[in-house]
Amino acid sequence: MLEEQLKASIRDVEDFPQVGITFKDITPILKDPELCHQVVVEFAEQLKDIEIDAIAGIESRGFLFGFMLANYMNKPFIPIRKQGKLPYKTISESYKLEYGQATIEIHDDAFESGQKILIHDDLLATGGTVVAASKLIEKLGGVVAGYSFVISLDFLNSRGRLTRFSDQIVTLVSYNQ
Amino acid sequence: MLEEQLKASIRDVEDFPQVGITFKDITPILKDPELCHQVVVEFAEQLKDIEIDAIAGIESRGFLFGFMLANYMNKPFIPIRKQGKLPYKTISESYKLEYGQATIEIHDDAFESGQKILIHDDLLATGGTVVAASKLIEKLGGVVAGYSFVISLDFLNSRGRLTRFSDQIVTLVSYNQ
Repeated sequence: MLEEQLKASIRDVEDFPQVGITFKDITPILKDPELCHQVVVEFAEQLKDIEIDAIAGIESRGFLFGFMLANYMNKPFIPIRKQGKLPYKTISESYKLEYGQATIEIHDDAFESGQKILIHDDLLATGGTVVAASKLIEKLGGVVAGYSFVISLDFLNSRGRLTRFSDQIVTLVSYNQ
Repeated sequence: MLEEQLKASIRDVEDFPQVGITFKDITPILKDPELCHQVVVEFAEQLKDIEIDAIAGIESRGFLFGFMLANYMNKPFIPIRKQGKLPYKTISESYKLEYGQATIEIHDDAFESGQKILIHDDLLATGGTVVAASKLIEKLGGVVAGYSFVISLDFLNSRGRLTRFSDQIVTLVSYNQ
């Protein structure tokens, strides 16, 4: 099964980015093109009943499968980037980190008002970035069609933060601890 | 022709990231999945006679077509990232910017010694990042098989900085001024 294959490939890195955190490293998946292809096919299968006009990927790791999925599903791809990286007119949204805050941006012509946007990232942890991305979509007049994540850290209980935008949440690998 | 289609899609943004610079914005290309597919097909066609074991993409925009191309060519993908972003053991390389310096990293198990690595980024400008990426490949015992860029700013004359690593340089769009 795909989830087992992915779990066998994902590497735990202890104490990254700080002591006490176990980081889920997806770089071994990226080395396996057949497995990557299966990831995209499985996303597309699980998303096939959701109406999607475009796919937004969150910098940087959300650019990987997000862009490939957009192309596989024949949809436009929209980059959501860290502050100051997108060259054209942008709108921005800030969110709290454990220490300080971060800001992400989207081009103000990224999509048409009323369009349904799937938000993709590689991993759902506390959901802070994804909530900010969802607010960007709504600020621009879009609708959050749903979410796709390769990995979900379910023990952080962040799915509830997303359901006010959309209850369509596709994840391929879940960790309960 | 593909180059004309891409040029018609690429957006010039004046004075980004600083006054006097005209930035080549590829986000309109990303909105066009058919054009993105043609980009990957064309890269694969132009690279078909080069022996490649894996494709390394440079964060962040090099993750887009780099990862898709790797999957299209059925090759492993290797992320080259900014300092502090890769979780496992890394080696790093610093390079000069106009003011100050930047550092990029690669996992020390990214590939096997002797493997031939294609380096991908969206745009070749002064070549500073790409030269640093090439040094990372060689430090790890790899061979730079070649380069792929969507855009090359030929008026910056940076191709000569790459030929000491490989003279296989594929670009789809060139600007001479």
